Formats: sequence, structure tokens, C-alpha cells
Amino acid sequence: MLESKAPDVHYVGMASLTEFNLAETVAVLTRTPATLNALLRGLPSIWVRGTEGEDTWSAFEIMGHLVFAERSDWMPRVRIVLENGEARTFEPFDRFAQLKESQDKSLEQLLDDFARLRRENLAALHALNLHQDDLTRRGKHPALGVVTLSELLATWAVHDLTHLHQLSRLMAHQYRGLVGPWSAYLGVLQCAGHSAP
Amino acid sequence: MLESKAPDVHYVGMASLTEFNLAETVAVLTRTPATLNALLRGLPSIWVRGTEGEDTWSAFEIMGHLVFAERSDWMPRVRIVLENGEARTFEPFDRFAQLKESQDKSLEQLLDDFARLRRENLAALHALNLHQDDLTRRGKHPALGVVTLSELLATWAVHDLTHLHQLSRLMAHQYRGLVGPWSAYLGVLQCAGHSAP
Repeated sequence: MLESKAPDVHYVGMASLTEFNLAETVAVLTRTPATLNALLRGLPSIWVRGTEGEDTWSAFEIMGHLVFAERSDWMPRVRIVLENGEARTFEPFDRFAQLKESQDKSLEQLLDDFARLRRENLAALHALNLHQDDLTRRGKHPALGVVTLSELLATWAVHDLTHLHQLSRLMAHQYRGLVGPWSAYLGVLQCAGHSAP
Repeated sequence: MLESKAPDVHYVGMASLTEFNLAETVAVLTRTPATLNALLRGLPSIWVRGTEGEDTWSAFEIMGHLVFAERSDWMPRVRIVLENGEARTFEPFDRFAQLKESQDKSLEQLLDDFARLRRENLAALHALNLHQDDLTRRGKHPALGVVTLSELLATWAVHDLTHLHQLSRLMAHQYRGLVGPWSAYLGVLQCAGHSAP
């Protein structure tokens, strides 16, 4: 998740037929730790340490980022919305903190940390016993302006998917030179990368 | 995987520092069934049946495609390379076969089928006891022309990653209208889709 580009104006979510549903959101959030564990644990280092080039992340760094976000971003912001509303702007999120914090850990430790923190956060979310009315409560993002609780929760789930998307792309990148003429058929090799990183 | 666009000429894989390594390739292929199982099993239907619009696939259709490829594409082509070389062109791969084959199955049956077929295929691959010399053996693709065994095996792994990339993108698409101003920060929402579908 970038925290540097600010749109000029605040805008309301695009028209959509999808309504926010907390159970559907939690269904994704619940599955991410096991998905990443199945994908990454025990992989040879080409897949864990490989990047997409200078100033891009490896699988290891993505896991560090997810652990840091789990500790510092999502549930603290949920609590600020519920307790302070727009009166207290969220702390800016440091997207590079994990580069210092996780450097002495193994990938396996990061996978374990992420699974534990996510489990604790979902238990804490459940304990809040949110009602439909709560989902429209507003908070203030330091760059994006006014956001709602449902937007924050939907973003938590899509943030998981953004990093799964990035992981599959960066892993595929390691084999870019090995697939021969099939590269024309493999969509993931045409993905130029979207967020930084 | 598209099988319709043919480049005008056969070209050799781009220069790369990565050497093909069978164990590293198998490490990815081995993990895909559990990854998809952790991601998809038991998800609410918005995530399983949602698509990215007309003529695009749902998670259900992607799983059907992966099952069909596992049965009809990868190992049959490996055997053709080893037994016939360039003398026998691969069968064209029907990317839409699964739309008929899997329509009466559940997502859970497709996940089970995929895990079983992948396990059988990796056992069969292991039993071939491939040597370094075998990896440069050549086969003939109906659209792409001459390909090598190592290119076929690398493509098998990157094909898994292409569909993981597609899955994360199509799931995120379901929440496109719910994340509010955060959409600017979520890379997966900027991915326009690459292969068809």
C-alpha cells in the first residue's frame, strides 16, 4: 500500500453493485496466512530472495511488510475510527519499517508471526461486535482524507490480495528467461508491477 | 495460457542469469494445490463465482482449467518430447474444455481433483529420472514451433503462477467499489489483465 500519492480531492467510492459484507471480508482475511504458508514455507532461496530488480521486494520482504502492517496498521486504525472518528488522523504507515525489523528473522518466523497476529486481530475484530451502523463511521487518513470503517476493512482484504498478486508476479519473474516462446502466453509475465513496490 | 497468438518466428529464450533447476521447479509445482486449497476452499460465492466481466473467468472456471491442463497438457507433452521429439507436434490445448467438463462439479471437487492429478503427475515426472541432457531435448508446439523440455517444465510452474496472479486480481475486482480512496494505493486494482482470460 502506498502512502505517498495523494489524490487532489477526496472522492466517494465508485458506484458498485457489491455491498460490503463483513463475513465475506473476514473469509478472505482468515485464509491469507495459510495461503502464504502453503505457497512459501520451505521454498528454495531463488523464490524467497529473488526480486523484480532494484528497489523491489522479495517474498521475504513482503512477509516482513505484512507482519508490520498486521501489528501497526489495520486494527489500530479500526480503533481510532471507533474511538476518535475524524478527530484523530491515523498515523502514517511506514512501508519500509520491516526492512529493519525483520532482517534477523527467517521466512518461517515471519510466516508464524503473521499467522499469530492475524488470528489475534480477527479475534479482536470479532469482539468489537460491529453493527451495520458502525460500518459507515468515518476516520481521517493522513493523505487520503475522510474514509469509512467499511472502506478500511475492505482495503485490509484487498491489501492481502495485492501482495499475493505481487508474490505470484515476482516469483514468475525469476523464470522469465526460462520459458522460451511460451512467455507470450503467460499473462503474469506481462504484468509491469503496479504499486511501489 | 493462450494458444492462439503465434509469433512470426521461433526465438530462443532471453538471456538470463537463471539456470533451469528441476528441483526448484518441482518446489513450486508441489505447493500449488495446497496454496489454492487454502485460498479458495469454503469461500462465500462472491469470491468463487465472481468474474472480471463478460468473457472472463471465475475462480471456479480457473480451477476447472487447471484440472484439465493437469490431465491433458503437461505430462502428455513431456512424454511426446521424450518419445517422439520434434517428429510429433503437440495436440493443441483446449482452453475452454473445462467449461463443459467441470460444470457439474463443486469447487471442492475440483480442488481435490487438482491435488490428486498434480500428485500423480509429479510422481510420474520423478519416475522419468530426467538427466541434464534430457532438458535440452526438443519438441514441437503447434503454434510456437520448437520448444525444449526445460522450457515446457518452466512453463508448467509459471502457468500455476499466472493463474494465482489472475485469482488474486479477480478476487480484488469484486471489492473495487468498496475500498474508497485507497484504490489508488492497491496495485492489484491497477492490473488490467494480461492473458485472455
